[in-house]
Amino acid sequence: MSQRLRAPVVLPADPACSVVRDGVVDVDDTGRVSYCGPAATAPPAAGARVAELPGILLPGLVNAHAHSPMVLLRGMGGDLPLLRWLREVIWPAEARLRPDDVHAGMLLGAVEMLRNGVTTSAEMYFHAERMAEAVLAAGSRVVLGGPIIDLPGLDWRSMIAETERWIDVDGLVFGAGDRVELSYAAHSAYMLPVDALREIAKSASARGALVQIHVAEAPDEDERQRAEHGSVPRLLDHVGLLDGRLIAAHAVHLSDEDIALLAARGAGVAHCPGSNAKLASGIARLTDLRNASVPVGLGTDGPASNDDLDLWEEVQLAPMLARLSTQDSTAVTAADALLLATRGGAEALGRSDIGSLEPGRWADLVHVDLDDPAFATGLDVPDDQLVANLVWAAGSRRVRDVWVAGEQVVAEGEATRVDRAAAQADVRTAAARLRA
Amino acid sequence: MSQRLRAPVVLPADPACSVVRDGVVDVDDTGRVSYCGPAATAPPAAGARVAELPGILLPGLVNAHAHSPMVLLRGMGGDLPLLRWLREVIWPAEARLRPDDVHAGMLLGAVEMLRNGVTTSAEMYFHAERMAEAVLAAGSRVVLGGPIIDLPGLDWRSMIAETERWIDVDGLVFGAGDRVELSYAAHSAYMLPVDALREIAKSASARGALVQIHVAEAPDEDERQRAEHGSVPRLLDHVGLLDGRLIAAHAVHLSDEDIALLAARGAGVAHCPGSNAKLASGIARLTDLRNASVPVGLGTDGPASNDDLDLWEEVQLAPMLARLSTQDSTAVTAADALLLATRGGAEALGRSDIGSLEPGRWADLVHVDLDDPAFATGLDVPDDQLVANLVWAAGSRRVRDVWVAGEQVVAEGEATRVDRAAAQADVRTAAARLRA
Repeated sequence: MSQRLRAPVVLPADPACSVVRDGVVDVDDTGRVSYCGPAATAPPAAGARVAELPGILLPGLVNAHAHSPMVLLRGMGGDLPLLRWLREVIWPAEARLRPDDVHAGMLLGAVEMLRNGVTTSAEMYFHAERMAEAVLAAGSRVVLGGPIIDLPGLDWRSMIAETERWIDVDGLVFGAGDRVELSYAAHSAYMLPVDALREIAKSASARGALVQIHVAEAPDEDERQRAEHGSVPRLLDHVGLLDGRLIAAHAVHLSDEDIALLAARGAGVAHCPGSNAKLASGIARLTDLRNASVPVGLGTDGPASNDDLDLWEEVQLAPMLARLSTQDSTAVTAADALLLATRGGAEALGRSDIGSLEPGRWADLVHVDLDDPAFATGLDVPDDQLVANLVWAAGSRRVRDVWVAGEQVVAEGEATRVDRAAAQADVRTAAARLRA
Repeated sequence: MSQRLRAPVVLPADPACSVVRDGVVDVDDTGRVSYCGPAATAPPAAGARVAELPGILLPGLVNAHAHSPMVLLRGMGGDLPLLRWLREVIWPAEARLRPDDVHAGMLLGAVEMLRNGVTTSAEMYFHAERMAEAVLAAGSRVVLGGPIIDLPGLDWRSMIAETERWIDVDGLVFGAGDRVELSYAAHSAYMLPVDALREIAKSASARGALVQIHVAEAPDEDERQRAEHGSVPRLLDHVGLLDGRLIAAHAVHLSDEDIALLAARGAGVAHCPGSNAKLASGIARLTDLRNASVPVGLGTDGPASNDDLDLWEEVQLAPMLARLSTQDSTAVTAADALLLATRGGAEALGRSDIGSLEPGRWADLVHVDLDDPAFATGLDVPDDQLVANLVWAAGSRRVRDVWVAGEQVVAEGEATRVDRAAAQADVRTAAARLRA
């Protein structure tokens, strides 16, 4: 063991969402958790550095669906109807995007997420190689999709080939502490021909790679697919995409059969309640997905539409919208919601090395301090009340320290590796040019 | 003029939600706004203290429905079904409430709100006289209801008489800078007999006082009223409550006729989207209420159920839920949402002295600084983007300074009049006894 973190409360994000009082997390030399549990039963600390933290320790949150470099376009034209927003605002701005812009956007996005306690994000955007560079600089963790989309001027075949080459050269997972995982970011069934989907399935599956794809987000977007193939999940199954690793982002408009199909094939879902509400896309069937044992994580979606990278908002919105749609105020508890954002996100991405504080997993950790009215009733409250205080009242407000693979990347609320003011200034410069 | 606040952006919360660049707010000796507009057309500063603020100045937010002392019970039993939660957790705890507890809860609640930029709240809870004391100590502003409810051991007649005596002695509005307005907190049609409602209408109207009342919150709570009287609004009209000043909290389950009736009688609505979602009460018809010109504000509801006093969450939730329920992503813009939380709340409470930065209104002000990724795209963005960044991405996170009636009550994020650590400790002690 190289370091020990001790705190009055540790939430390991085990399936029961246990609350460990006077807990310890030990981190070994490789940056992995070697022990998580009560201090009373911890192994001897030997020569390890011991940090006494005054608050709550929990695993880093997993943002299961994001387009973080869109911090460059945050809030642009957000009150327009969706298609006008894309055609008049977003696409013209994206046409001016340079690789350096994407780097600047991803760097600030990673810093924003880290400060909110999000240590891993699943990303789909252009110039993915520059995104990897930014994430490695910030010290966070990413599941990165090489973008594949059928648009004028873009060729999906060469986009697949590019992702293949990248994986074949760099490997599926790389960076100190496995910081970067490569995947395929297939935009959607409505932005790719069936041939492309089939090619992606083949190529990803040959490499054991994850496929990220938007599924059934807006009520009408996938009408043609549904008419032709029954539903998007059926189409994905038909082309072989559900035989491999897949995470379906949004997945708002699903039938019972679609849910059963995703469950049977082990596909994950990235539930994005904030984006789905703000864009009037609808409310995904979270309780039905959970009841069917589909692995579900939470995603912010891109900050051009949602508009920030604070996954704690999704932690609150997921139960709120589930309760509204089921008319059941006990649907999705605070503990359920916290697990969605941690081990749920890891499961939905098919990752067993993050999302909870179990020996062998990466020591991706968040320390939330208690100096806030949210915790004024104190620590001597029942476990469910403490989790409720964290989830419903504290949220990202008191995230003070964050570690990835045992390395402290946020201290006292600020990123340790990145000059945030400089990162904000770079985004400002880039954003001004994109608006021009 | 006694002081001038100058900032790169001022949002006066006028009906158009104007964005004033390089703006100035002048405050006179009585604590009222004497000028708000561009620096270029401001009167000479004469001998006024001038403060240059680096961010956005806007009016203090108005929380149109709260039970703030319930910070004492924050997160208790929150995953239970509503009736079990009340019977097994909340009511037993409230039976142990002492006046000092309510003072401690309201004091911390006021501090929490001020730090979130909420300068006024409309409150319903027990021991209202101790709440007034706490608000006067914190330096915020309150519309306070003397509670009237028909419960074993409580007599609604004497509760009305108590409110009457209080108003007759202290006056409707008192405290430096009109900090406290007294009103009647009639719990609801289902917790009060028709006779009581009639008496409250008579008593309040004789004094020109506002009546706060819960209306049509849960789908089934008011079944009997609907069967007997058509609907709660019809009953309120029948007993004369809509002839005077009234704010209906929640107002989730309204027919077209109910909305037309509230509009015709000039009743206000306190929309509580967070509470209504978390408790699965339903989605109020915000766009229909607005189209009918019903004055609508936003409320957090009590922190035992919602669970914090951050009205910015309601500012985000109101458009989200409105967009979901109308399937229109342009329903309720960011500017609309901000106006709901400021001038809308003032209008719903029937107050023309707060809620916007117009000459003659109280100088209740919030300064949000820009040192956050939320504002990384800079100030040189279109007005709608700047408002979107504030509403959707920044929220309460960067509230740094707050003034009430021209007096600075939050500086650099901390309350100036209250020792927050001591207030938290008092709540902890009280909460422990209430749980026992």
